[in-house]
Amino acid sequence: MTAQAGVPAPDVRALFNPRSIALVGATDKSGWSVSTFGNLRAQGFAGPVHLVNPRGGTVHGQDAYRSLSDVPGPVDLAYVMVPTRAVLPILREGAGLGVRAYVVLTAGFGEVGGEGAALEREVAGFAREHGLALLGPNGNGYINAAAGVTPYGLPIPAPLLRGSVGVVLQSGALASSVLAFAQARNVGISLLTSMGNEAVLTVTDVIDYLVDDPATKVIALFLESVRDPAEFARVARRALLKGKPIVALKIGRSSLASRTAQAHTGALVGDDNVVDAAFRGLGVLRVRSLEDLLITAGLLDAVGEIPGRRLGVVTPSGGASEIIADRAEDEGLELPEFAPETAAKLAGIVPAFATVQNPLDVTGYVLIDRTLLGRALEAVTGDPGIDAVLLLSEPPRAEPPDPAPVLATYRAAAERIAASPTPVVVVSNVLTDISPFGRRVQAETGYPYVAGGIEHGLSAIGAAVRWSEIRRAELERAAASAEPARPKAVAVPEGASGLWAEHRAAALLAEGGIPVVPSELARDEESAVAAAERFGYPVVLKVAAEGLGHKSDIGGVKLGLADGHEVRKAYREVVAAVPEGIEASGALVQPQRPKGGVELLVGVVRDPGWGLTLAVGLGGVWVEVLRDTALRVLPVDAAEVRRALGELRGARLLEGARGTEPADLGAVAAVVARIAAFAQGLGDRLESLEINPLLVTGSRVEALDALVTWRD
Amino acid sequence: MTAQAGVPAPDVRALFNPRSIALVGATDKSGWSVSTFGNLRAQGFAGPVHLVNPRGGTVHGQDAYRSLSDVPGPVDLAYVMVPTRAVLPILREGAGLGVRAYVVLTAGFGEVGGEGAALEREVAGFAREHGLALLGPNGNGYINAAAGVTPYGLPIPAPLLRGSVGVVLQSGALASSVLAFAQARNVGISLLTSMGNEAVLTVTDVIDYLVDDPATKVIALFLESVRDPAEFARVARRALLKGKPIVALKIGRSSLASRTAQAHTGALVGDDNVVDAAFRGLGVLRVRSLEDLLITAGLLDAVGEIPGRRLGVVTPSGGASEIIADRAEDEGLELPEFAPETAAKLAGIVPAFATVQNPLDVTGYVLIDRTLLGRALEAVTGDPGIDAVLLLSEPPRAEPPDPAPVLATYRAAAERIAASPTPVVVVSNVLTDISPFGRRVQAETGYPYVAGGIEHGLSAIGAAVRWSEIRRAELERAAASAEPARPKAVAVPEGASGLWAEHRAAALLAEGGIPVVPSELARDEESAVAAAERFGYPVVLKVAAEGLGHKSDIGGVKLGLADGHEVRKAYREVVAAVPEGIEASGALVQPQRPKGGVELLVGVVRDPGWGLTLAVGLGGVWVEVLRDTALRVLPVDAAEVRRALGELRGARLLEGARGTEPADLGAVAAVVARIAAFAQGLGDRLESLEINPLLVTGSRVEALDALVTWRD
Repeated sequence: MTAQAGVPAPDVRALFNPRSIALVGATDKSGWSVSTFGNLRAQGFAGPVHLVNPRGGTVHGQDAYRSLSDVPGPVDLAYVMVPTRAVLPILREGAGLGVRAYVVLTAGFGEVGGEGAALEREVAGFAREHGLALLGPNGNGYINAAAGVTPYGLPIPAPLLRGSVGVVLQSGALASSVLAFAQARNVGISLLTSMGNEAVLTVTDVIDYLVDDPATKVIALFLESVRDPAEFARVARRALLKGKPIVALKIGRSSLASRTAQAHTGALVGDDNVVDAAFRGLGVLRVRSLEDLLITAGLLDAVGEIPGRRLGVVTPSGGASEIIADRAEDEGLELPEFAPETAAKLAGIVPAFATVQNPLDVTGYVLIDRTLLGRALEAVTGDPGIDAVLLLSEPPRAEPPDPAPVLATYRAAAERIAASPTPVVVVSNVLTDISPFGRRVQAETGYPYVAGGIEHGLSAIGAAVRWSEIRRAELERAAASAEPARPKAVAVPEGASGLWAEHRAAALLAEGGIPVVPSELARDEESAVAAAERFGYPVVLKVAAEGLGHKSDIGGVKLGLADGHEVRKAYREVVAAVPEGIEASGALVQPQRPKGGVELLVGVVRDPGWGLTLAVGLGGVWVEVLRDTALRVLPVDAAEVRRALGELRGARLLEGARGTEPADLGAVAAVVARIAAFAQGLGDRLESLEINPLLVTGSRVEALDALVTWRD
Repeated sequence: MTAQAGVPAPDVRALFNPRSIALVGATDKSGWSVSTFGNLRAQGFAGPVHLVNPRGGTVHGQDAYRSLSDVPGPVDLAYVMVPTRAVLPILREGAGLGVRAYVVLTAGFGEVGGEGAALEREVAGFAREHGLALLGPNGNGYINAAAGVTPYGLPIPAPLLRGSVGVVLQSGALASSVLAFAQARNVGISLLTSMGNEAVLTVTDVIDYLVDDPATKVIALFLESVRDPAEFARVARRALLKGKPIVALKIGRSSLASRTAQAHTGALVGDDNVVDAAFRGLGVLRVRSLEDLLITAGLLDAVGEIPGRRLGVVTPSGGASEIIADRAEDEGLELPEFAPETAAKLAGIVPAFATVQNPLDVTGYVLIDRTLLGRALEAVTGDPGIDAVLLLSEPPRAEPPDPAPVLATYRAAAERIAASPTPVVVVSNVLTDISPFGRRVQAETGYPYVAGGIEHGLSAIGAAVRWSEIRRAELERAAASAEPARPKAVAVPEGASGLWAEHRAAALLAEGGIPVVPSELARDEESAVAAAERFGYPVVLKVAAEGLGHKSDIGGVKLGLADGHEVRKAYREVVAAVPEGIEASGALVQPQRPKGGVELLVGVVRDPGWGLTLAVGLGGVWVEVLRDTALRVLPVDAAEVRRALGELRGARLLEGARGTEPADLGAVAAVVARIAAFAQGLGDRLESLEINPLLVTGSRVEALDALVTWRD
């Protein structure tokens, strides 16, 4: 959504909170019309619902107006279901009447291409010119459950559970599944929107609204593509600072899904690994299933921030506690031993044959002593070495003949959990629906949210812990400086164009304060030898030629030259190695660094959507065979670079795993962060910058080769 | 379960199919007793249920006998709930009366250690001596749903769904979750057993029974440990040949879960990667969640063998089809393009604005044209390039006022699916319960099994495809030779003891027909030079000393020796490098192989449970930093070795990724398979055998160094 100068900004709040609605194109013959009208009535929309049909008459048992203009009183929202070509005339009529918010259900626009796409551009242009808030076209509308406003074109399965999870979907067909699953897990929603073609209002506009919506605590997204990464990053950062987690199921992990999404939406899909990196940097929690999307959102809604990754686990089952231990390790969660005082307390609570350990199995004696699990929970929540407690439990499925004792048991448990000094996450054994009686128990006793099953529950806890860490880091950064650290702008050098080979790239980096191996450009054999003697033998010779990228592949690099004779010979050879059409300007002479140390590859590449992205990896097989690189969308600080290095599969190599000197990770991270800042400082003109290798020997960090590519 | 000579074998079939049952220790005061009696009655056990209580009187509203001996008529099964010390006397009494099958619910045995463990040994010993089939102790019994026999000590949630999945659990507490989840997914079970302490009958005994049980088509296991791997392997292979898939949730992936399981069951837990390798070799499908356990078992029950990994996907949702594409790639499934004739047919079926591609989104027009999905399905099932079709659909949740049209729609779909020439797997969008109405629709229309949700459904399809491939390979092997290929026994050499360093290990391998670099043992400088001259320079010298393992770490290896002078110097150095307490017997002289080629590590190690296990990996960082090895429990053939090599993360190196000569994978696999067969031929005396490196240069494969360790 781009506001136009002199035009009032579209009012998204008003779109989602109308006091009166007109259904334009209402007819008994359309399932969409029937559903939309029925939904508004069933969910208790308090204002008037006007029906507009050019033939007038009775529609849905109510008098219809022949046009929008005939509707008496103000219309806050027009829900448009007219034929494709009639949409723009309706907008014109409505705009004239002061109707400023629209949901357009009608299809046949951008998704069919050609004429439809042209029509969509006209509609979008008109909406922008007149500051109209327009959702769709080709979308089913929205469900504002919090406010009871449900202009939505498909049946809403009853009961619609009201809560604090805001849902934004780039696929309308998934809405029914999302609603059904949210109901099954007793997760209430605040607002659900089916975005349609996003001709005017986009996903980020809705997120922006949800960040400020007091009814929404967590935001759940289904994304086919991120259309405007910069805008997405802006709203995601706002959500993070405001403490509203964003959970996202973003498809396109596989190359096939990318292709499918392109066929489907016409959106560009970039490298999925960059999406991963961008999301991580923004604290957007990427999940891989609809189940994880809602279970994670529900857990964050219920529990909020989790202070650390040390988990205490209380269960009535040995088998379950072992499954939990496996899953906790997958998620990087720690299950520390209990503190001695906790262990002593537990020894007095659990049966003699139980083992006091974390995860705790209080045993099947819960069936005999119904207070056992609760008392064990209380002991574990008091443990000073535990950040959060997982309680394996769930509300009952079937209603017993006398529900009172069951309700009392769950009320006592709910009180204990509410009084806990440590966050308690309740997880069920398996993912089955919470039954209507289970929902009643939760409603009447205050028994908390139950994450559905160990498998998805642990994914959700892992995600919540990661979000909490990223949020704390972001808050610290925000507290340390009022302004986010902007890298210092660097003047783009003269002649910045095309590919800059090593001799110019290295000089540029050196000017920027990046440690670069010393080198001299020799334009003949004699000066090469003279340079070699200044450096001392052995030396390296590399051909210098504009526009030549990978010079070692063509024999343009000679290593370990031991004397003047070898230098002369090497000079002749590397200059002669240049392919036709390129001219060698001489050769670079550099001191040969001793063997040992670890070679890194450091690249900064411009992603078409997310902008400059840092890639770090280990050289050689690590990059070439394993593609073992860690990515970060810029900006990054040294601490983040260090985390990125830690993610490499070959990270142990930096710790001296193969007998090499352990790398000073602080020094490496500082240099890489400086490279990243320098690249960012160069601004829009930079296309890419690659240092390969960055040689690390203990605390000595030095670029041995570099390439820069410019944008024109 | 070990049968004793002269004693009738315990009759597992009789245990699970009694015609009369005595509940010994029955009392109204015990929840277990109430549940067991109630379960037998509720599930319609047809035979007499006798109650035994030393005080007699009325129990559960029925006259109780004072002892087993007082029970008139034969007792096929005694369900024992007496105090721990009373169990053995009951067995004695029962054995005297001819009662040959027992479920012992009583706890306080092996799981509490000490005296309990001693008592358990007594109980087990007595049962073995008398050929009693005993389940437990410390187990809740079993549910033979197929036969309606349910001596089971916990409430069974209604309805108990009867079907073809046999469930064996090493954790009693998980049974309730398994039953609840099976019900939620409309998966029927044949038999569920809660194993308890496995004092007599073990998991493998029950699997053995299920393999022959006509009511069971698929076997689902929850395992804390595999107590007798050889026996497990035997029954698993039997199941594979019989076409009954085994799906297993085996905990212990994390080190913590291993520890937890040990605390819990006292069972030894080996290296989890070996379990993975063993399961894969046996076609046992390892899953990571209870959800996957039952969804996968249900799918295999419904669909059986799947002929290949090319999947056609038919959905009414673009978003869902993109999620499916991502998940299919995770599972190694292919989504090929439709054949031209299929695409043409589909173009005539789907709306004009839909894209004809795989995965197929027939669009939301399914809401208008209810035949759309079925017609598209029919077109795709006829595609010659598709092995199986995923149909995204599910039975309805809520019962409509008039169910007849809904039933008719599902009946038509069911008929279409049944008539399909290609297996059709129905998958729902998300994992929610199948509602009672949904179950009714399935029962009345024959609508097939629905895998619960895309996430778990794709895991299940992936597993089913893998199982089908392993089964086909096993059947081929079985068809090719009546007997499984037994490696030829190799005579264990004289002096086989302790560690054999290279010079003896290499000679042994060479005798076994493994290509080994030629070498001579020189006992002084002169003969070293003479040997070097016979080989031609350059040569390698390696110290020879009994009991010396890693000789290069101490400077005991010298490479690239170019002349007699260097050989002499090297001889002196390597011999002097031997640490105190070890005596050098001389030095091995070998030709130096030219650089290039790929170095592999090939090890055969004896796992305490699974026996000799092959590990192959790439040398250097690959093994040391990445631990990039592939394991196989022996025996293996060359085809299996080739698959193992393909699993390595560095597999591309063997294809010449770094400019080296591509390895002849057939030649490598043949040599590795020969090494494995040779190791197996050596039999029980071999502890381990390591070749590091095995140098591969094109089709030349040669062991450059070896170590053998013997067991005494």
